Amino acid sequence: MAEQAVETMDGWYCLHDFRNIDWPAWKQAAPEERAEAIGELKELLAKWEAVEEKKEGSHAFYQIVGQKADIMFMLLRPTMNELGNFETELAKSKIGDYLLPAYSYVSVVELSKYRAYEEEHPEENPHVKARLQPILPKWEHMCFYPMDKRRGDQHNWYDTDFKKRAGLLYEHSKTGRKYSGKVSQIISGSFGFDDWEWGVTLFAHDVINLKKIVYEMRFDEASAHYAEFGEFLVGNILDKESVTSYLEV
Amino acid sequence: MAEQAVETMDGWYCLHDFRNIDWPAWKQAAPEERAEAIGELKELLAKWEAVEEKKEGSHAFYQIVGQKADIMFMLLRPTMNELGNFETELAKSKIGDYLLPAYSYVSVVELSKYRAYEEEHPEENPHVKARLQPILPKWEHMCFYPMDKRRGDQHNWYDTDFKKRAGLLYEHSKTGRKYSGKVSQIISGSFGFDDWEWGVTLFAHDVINLKKIVYEMRFDEASAHYAEFGEFLVGNILDKESVTSYLEV
Amino acid sequence: MAEQAVETMDGWYCLHDFRNIDWPAWKQAAPEERAEAIGELKELLAKWEAVEEKKEGSHAFYQIVGQKADIMFMLLRPTMNELGNFETELAKSKIGDYLLPAYSYVSVVELSKYRAYEEEHPEENPHVKARLQPILPKWEHMCFYPMDKRRGDQHNWYDTDFKKRAGLLYEHSKTGRKYSGKVSQIISGSFGFDDWEWGVTLFAHDVINLKKIVYEMRFDEASAHYAEFGEFLVGNILDKESVTSYLEV
Amino acid sequence: MAEQAVETMDGWYCLHDFRNIDWPAWKQAAPEERAEAIGELKELLAKWEAVEEKKEGSHAFYQIVGQKADIMFMLLRPTMNELGNFETELAKSKIGDYLLPAYSYVSVVELSKYRAYEEEHPEENPHVKARLQPILPKWEHMCFYPMDKRRGDQHNWYDTDFKKRAGLLYEHSKTGRKYSGKVSQIISGSFGFDDWEWGVTLFAHDVINLKKIVYEMRFDEASAHYAEFGEFLVGNILDKESVTSYLEV
Amino acid sequence: MAEQAVETMDGWYCLHDFRNIDWPAWKQAAPEERAEAIGELKELLAKWEAVEEKKEGSHAFYQIVGQKADIMFMLLRPTMNELGNFETELAKSKIGDYLLPAYSYVSVVELSKYRAYEEEHPEENPHVKARLQPILPKWEHMCFYPMDKRRGDQHNWYDTDFKKRAGLLYEHSKTGRKYSGKVSQIISGSFGFDDWEWGVTLFAHDVINLKKIVYEMRFDEASAHYAEFGEFLVGNILDKESVTSYLEV
Repeated sequence: MAEQAVETMDGWYCLHDFRNIDWPAWKQAAPEERAEAIGELKELLAKWEAVEEKKEGSHAFYQIVGQKADIMFMLLRPTMNELGNFETELAKSKIGDYLLPAYSYVSVVELSKYRAYEEEHPEENPHVKARLQPILPKWEHMCFYPMDKRRGDQHNWYDTDFKKRAGLLYEHSKTGRKYSGKVSQIISGSFGFDDWEWGVTLFAHDVINLKKIVYEMRFDEASAHYAEFGEFLVGNILDKESVTSYLEV
Repeated sequence: MAEQAVETMDGWYCLHDFRNIDWPAWKQAAPEERAEAIGELKELLAKWEAVEEKKEGSHAFYQIVGQKADIMFMLLRPTMNELGNFETELAKSKIGDYLLPAYSYVSVVELSKYRAYEEEHPEENPHVKARLQPILPKWEHMCFYPMDKRRGDQHNWYDTDFKKRAGLLYEHSKTGRKYSGKVSQIISGSFGFDDWEWGVTLFAHDVINLKKIVYEMRFDEASAHYAEFGEFLVGNILDKESVTSYLEV
Repeated sequence: MAEQAVETMDGWYCLHDFRNIDWPAWKQAAPEERAEAIGELKELLAKWEAVEEKKEGSHAFYQIVGQKADIMFMLLRPTMNELGNFETELAKSKIGDYLLPAYSYVSVVELSKYRAYEEEHPEENPHVKARLQPILPKWEHMCFYPMDKRRGDQHNWYDTDFKKRAGLLYEHSKTGRKYSGKVSQIISGSFGFDDWEWGVTLFAHDVINLKKIVYEMRFDEASAHYAEFGEFLVGNILDKESVTSYLEV
Repeated sequence: MAEQAVETMDGWYCLHDFRNIDWPAWKQAAPEERAEAIGELKELLAKWEAVEEKKEGSHAFYQIVGQKADIMFMLLRPTMNELGNFETELAKSKIGDYLLPAYSYVSVVELSKYRAYEEEHPEENPHVKARLQPILPKWEHMCFYPMDKRRGDQHNWYDTDFKKRAGLLYEHSKTGRKYSGKVSQIISGSFGFDDWEWGVTLFAHDVINLKKIVYEMRFDEASAHYAEFGEFLVGNILDKESVTSYLEV
Repeated sequence: MAEQAVETMDGWYCLHDFRNIDWPAWKQAAPEERAEAIGELKELLAKWEAVEEKKEGSHAFYQIVGQKADIMFMLLRPTMNELGNFETELAKSKIGDYLLPAYSYVSVVELSKYRAYEEEHPEENPHVKARLQPILPKWEHMCFYPMDKRRGDQHNWYDTDFKKRAGLLYEHSKTGRKYSGKVSQIISGSFGFDDWEWGVTLFAHDVINLKKIVYEMRFDEASAHYAEFGEFLVGNILDKESVTSYLEV
């Protein structure tokens, strides 16, 4: 055996931070306390936007549907330390007192080198760089799920021949390309960082395309034989404007 | 391999929202607080009924038996955003302060195209449309469970031949048809939206038929070889009238 | 394939309701509050006894050993609605404020028709009826566990030939009969009602027989090859008299 | 198939009761409240010692390392009712208000009759009796874990030939005997009583021997092919003297 | 079968103690209370440093990224009792009132003797001793995960031939050596101590190397065929200086 691992190119570090709002406590808070907390949250969002404008990171902010969480912050930053600092900052903020932990995921945006890259340092190719340090689209809907490649007796990704793997992923990417312009996808690796091997974040204008792409891909051999999936979370965008009405009670 | 996925037609978005009532807190609340909360809940129910009358959505409201939850709201709406708004509205309502999260499920009503449809746009066929945008029957009992199709070494739905799958589902539907008039069934897909692939909601006049149909179907090859099941929840209907006596303490 | 499901005869609906007592809160309650709560609980028990005397239902009340729960109510009633009403009544009672949820199970007493019945309507045969609407023995000990029949690649109950299944269950019942008079058994089906397919409730005078029968049955092929088990809970009887001393602090 | 189950001899009933201490509440309690609670706990321990001196039961008391629990009570008694009574007594005690549930296990000390016994009633043989009603060694360290015998497609303990099983267990016991004097072992059965089939409690003077024996035994075929393990908990002895300093704040 | 277990050399006992900070309570505490708590924590850290200087133990202190925990203490000590004492000391400290349990792991640093050692008592070889009683590097990042060796039908580590195992581990160690100077690794055994068989702690200057090594090793046959993994936690170093600013609110 001893299959050679395929190198990856790694970009920005990525935190998906899902929270529940402690609505009863929030409603009981004094109006000025709530106003201050909303103000602070908006300052945070404005600060992140400034980072995004300088292309030093990116973020997304969505309302999650269902009881798994109320909201999701997704934060991309050049270092793992900035992700830790985000959490500390949120914990110390006023709004933080009303945000209960729900679920989180730590990973790093990656591209695998299954495709041959002709450059010596493909990660410096502007097109590749844009994919490793992506500005997240502010599309209407998103979903997130983590996944593993199966290590079963019959189908074991990690003892599968390189060419076979490359072929399966190429086939898989063709399904993805059918949704070009409709679904935007971020793949982040989490080996050593979190419980699954990869995180998948999908953005869509029409939420039905999130279902269609996940369903259709399940028939690709890469998924049908080799994928194990974790939780799925789906959400609707919350922009700076809707934040106020969302939190207003 | 590379089996072609079967297209689905998708209808209304669907939230199953299971809640526990915080009975000790509810009993300690002031009588006028409770009266106000019940009044608000009834207004919500009345509003949903108005939506249903205009055929712009549908809903169901049941008491769940056992400790998994006390009550279930099931909400069908044309958009995912309306599901998120329902949650926000409930969180901000008075009754919301006494409703603890228990379990939820996000999906979309679907019909698969295993059956040949002769029309070009079958989703516009009134009969199909009625199934994609169903008005939920207000029958005495319901049960809900999520499920996956198995991706095992021996039985893997996603690498099974189209004709075989269509045949298994046809066979399966014949078991369902035996319960016609006794059990009404909503299938909703949750790829990309929640942890399982489908949600099944069954309604019955006689609760024993919920058991009989699930038991009998388990012997169909589609279930015996290919199904994995999640939690099962069962309930008794709560209508606008019984709400008051249910919550009265 | 398409194995025919074996019909079942269904009797009373069954709720196993396991609770923890919030002992610190109970001890802090005012003595008159505690006295009132105990009084209410005893009235409940007396009411259930009256139902039992009229053979309109049955119940059991046990102290559970270990931290999974402190007590178990087991309630048999002709309708699912009565089970829901029991929960509501308990929630609204004084003692309910000190009972934390621990675990519950919803099912219906059943007999399968693997054995040939000569009557046309065997469920009206008095012997059969007594088994479908059983008065629970007030024996010293009980245990409860839920189970599934396996749907594995090698051993799949649901694609096993009828005769094979009937033979395995006959063999299995012979092990049970060895404990006749020592262990009394209630089988209840929970397809569509709860997470497992069946619940098993065993009563014994000598608690060691609960262990002996479960151990011995595990070697029967019906268990060894085809059974999957959930949680096991064991308890000691609490009668109307011992309730007071149990709750007295 | 229809393998004959091997009879077991059953001794004292056994409760492993793991608890967390609610340290913040404990520290906030009034000094006299704490003194009273410690006094009560010491009385309990003294009472159990008196039982042990009369050989009417035995017990152990350890500090658990790691966050799974702070302390463990292990109680052996002739009846299941005494285990229930222990829990009630602890719940009603002052110290009980500061002990949060963590994990528990209900079982009965057992010896299997794989070995031929020449006596007609081996359980009355004094050597056998001493093993069924063991006085627990007050050694420096202990560990506890529950286990099942596997019922897999390839290795299924319950359809394995008696001789094969006896041989595997004999082999396994030889590994155990290498640790004679270093590790003392109690096997208790929990069929019908708790979620796993057996509980294993090991005592050692040198804690490293707990690791060595569990590691070495994993290579025995009885473990390698047939065992499934639950949680492992490890602890350091707390004697009557160290209790005070342990709880002193 | 009856494969001989490979002896291990065991060094310092090891506790990974992950905690969440109760930020809302911390922020509500009086400033002098917080100052005292920080002072106490720093004294603890200073005490541990003194132990480390005398080479009588070692420790690490990191901020964990994501919601699984806020901080991790990793403590190495010659005895299991010192690990228990650490927990008691933390529980009784002021800072302890604001530290919620999150996850912990109990193990002992080990080296296996798959490699031939020429000395009679290799554990006294200074090089070996340094690895069994390691001073933890104060590198910028760490990750921790527990693991088992698989006991599946096809790949079962515990019935695999010694030579095969030694070869697989040698191959595996070559992957590790590629990261020499970039990743520092501590392997600790937890048979009998905690739920998995081994804990792996990796330290790195550049956090991406934690991902790279875990990813690359997954293709080694020792992992691809024989490893099962638990949770992964990743963190950024917190030194004595940054503690104050981290906790300052």
